[in-house]
Amino acid sequence: METVVSGIRPTGNLHLGNYFGAVKSFLQMQNEYNCFFFIADWHSLTTHPHPDNIVSGVRKILAEYLACGIDPEKATIYVQSDVREVLELYLYLNMNAYLGELERTTSFKEKARKQPENVNAGLLTYPTLMASDIIVHKAAKVPVGKDQEQNMEMARKFARRFNTFYGVDYFPEPASFSLSNKAVKVPGLDGSGKMGKSEGNAIYLIDDEKTIKKKVMKAVTDAGPTVPNSEKPEPIENLFTMMEIVSSQDTYNYFNEKYANCEIRYGDMKKQLAEDINLFCSPIRERILDIAANTDYMEKVACQGAEKARESAAKTIQDVRRIIGFKAY
Amino acid sequence: METVVSGIRPTGNLHLGNYFGAVKSFLQMQNEYNCFFFIADWHSLTTHPHPDNIVSGVRKILAEYLACGIDPEKATIYVQSDVREVLELYLYLNMNAYLGELERTTSFKEKARKQPENVNAGLLTYPTLMASDIIVHKAAKVPVGKDQEQNMEMARKFARRFNTFYGVDYFPEPASFSLSNKAVKVPGLDGSGKMGKSEGNAIYLIDDEKTIKKKVMKAVTDAGPTVPNSEKPEPIENLFTMMEIVSSQDTYNYFNEKYANCEIRYGDMKKQLAEDINLFCSPIRERILDIAANTDYMEKVACQGAEKARESAAKTIQDVRRIIGFKAY
Repeated sequence: METVVSGIRPTGNLHLGNYFGAVKSFLQMQNEYNCFFFIADWHSLTTHPHPDNIVSGVRKILAEYLACGIDPEKATIYVQSDVREVLELYLYLNMNAYLGELERTTSFKEKARKQPENVNAGLLTYPTLMASDIIVHKAAKVPVGKDQEQNMEMARKFARRFNTFYGVDYFPEPASFSLSNKAVKVPGLDGSGKMGKSEGNAIYLIDDEKTIKKKVMKAVTDAGPTVPNSEKPEPIENLFTMMEIVSSQDTYNYFNEKYANCEIRYGDMKKQLAEDINLFCSPIRERILDIAANTDYMEKVACQGAEKARESAAKTIQDVRRIIGFKAY
Repeated sequence: METVVSGIRPTGNLHLGNYFGAVKSFLQMQNEYNCFFFIADWHSLTTHPHPDNIVSGVRKILAEYLACGIDPEKATIYVQSDVREVLELYLYLNMNAYLGELERTTSFKEKARKQPENVNAGLLTYPTLMASDIIVHKAAKVPVGKDQEQNMEMARKFARRFNTFYGVDYFPEPASFSLSNKAVKVPGLDGSGKMGKSEGNAIYLIDDEKTIKKKVMKAVTDAGPTVPNSEKPEPIENLFTMMEIVSSQDTYNYFNEKYANCEIRYGDMKKQLAEDINLFCSPIRERILDIAANTDYMEKVACQGAEKARESAAKTIQDVRRIIGFKAY
């Protein structure tokens, strides 16, 4: 069974974009692969050096992953900072990562531009830490979006370089597992672009009915079509895309027809959409609340995940130490 | 009792320069301070990425430290790679270490010049790893030579920055503990400069009588003084300095007078010096061989040291995690 690794930074709640863009695929993957899903609390320090409360961020994601249906009996769910082995690999990869290549990565250049007062070594070595997270489990595949493709290239390069350098065929090169075929790109409802935490247009799985309604009712629309069968402008297309995702086919067709006939009433459509989003979210929301309240269970899952992840990572580190020439305890 | 930390890279045997320059002071320190002496095997990777055999290098230094009289009941002697806690602090310090300041350090610039084909992130973050080694034990003092002064400055800066950043008064700023008053600078016998591994002029504690004699007899001299009470040129001064360190006062005076009277025979002086060096080294050499042969004892010392060092480091990491906002297990 091939190994899959995926991490998420605990810097907010899961939103519909996360769900349909990634988590939903994870539910299938956990049946077909040896999955490691981790909560990347160390990574969050590169841009959130003053974390208000990392623990609560981690707990949020953990509860939400579980509520979405990620099954700790099938997949290994763990918190990055519970597996210190990854830091040993991080050190070794740093010893073989050249400044030039690290400085040339797009994500580094972007972040350095955004926070010029804090261009730190953690930011620079983000790709080595990310590579460690992946190859410490000897992952074959990593589900990533396009924005992470360059970092995946680097992870492959570091794995290859380790092998070449020490004359071994140890680390597999982790392949990028594009989610774009299977996953749905959830649009924002603020006119253009995708739904995102940082875009400020996200509907969260934990949002209650009132919040959902408020967010949906605020969605950008226009004066409505005046010519039958008009093409939909982006904000309207986005509303329909969202409806396609959460509503029934009948509902979608009903409003689509109304649009084609120039009879659409966006207020009605939004009300229906808010209702359907709430229908989708409310059972998840209830599970989130249940699970989050059950701290014993959360603790048990985190401990069990940490143990499994550490076992996998420790095995790799033991091999790596032997390969480099360290004593293997 | 104040804490002292000192590390040595396991890239060769201890020589007389190490002994009189550092180890001899450690013997006194272990009675007066809470000492952590560690063997910096991870550090050796920055410049020795292809370590022939790290284990044997570590064992060498360990046996030699013990043979010199460092007492595992008084001081904590440990191998850096046994204390993974230090890597967690390394990560945190990286997150707060700016690229600019790291790139400006003299040791980085020098090493980058020496190995332009391998300017790696490990080299760049040498100061954060060194700072972690030190402050993970909340050291008050670090015995260092002048060449490490800048890295000590950075260690203080990182400690201070952590405190300021998280609004705590947690890490003490480690003071440099200059050995120059107490310690003796051992000259090389090849004309000028000090004795050093990389200078290729070292007499090792493990050298046998024949090797010592060969090295001393090769020492650079000149045609001898022709005017009474001449000032000694550097190569000759070095011979006398060495004699001052290892021989009796009488022996030193005897040859000093011969020099003053222009009656010095360097061959005789060197023979005497070789003999006295051997007299000094041979009991240490015997202990090294005894200890190195006793692998059970070596293992016991390393394990005991690792345990004590881990306990100290784990306590710090637990505090640091709490301060940053991580869950403290």
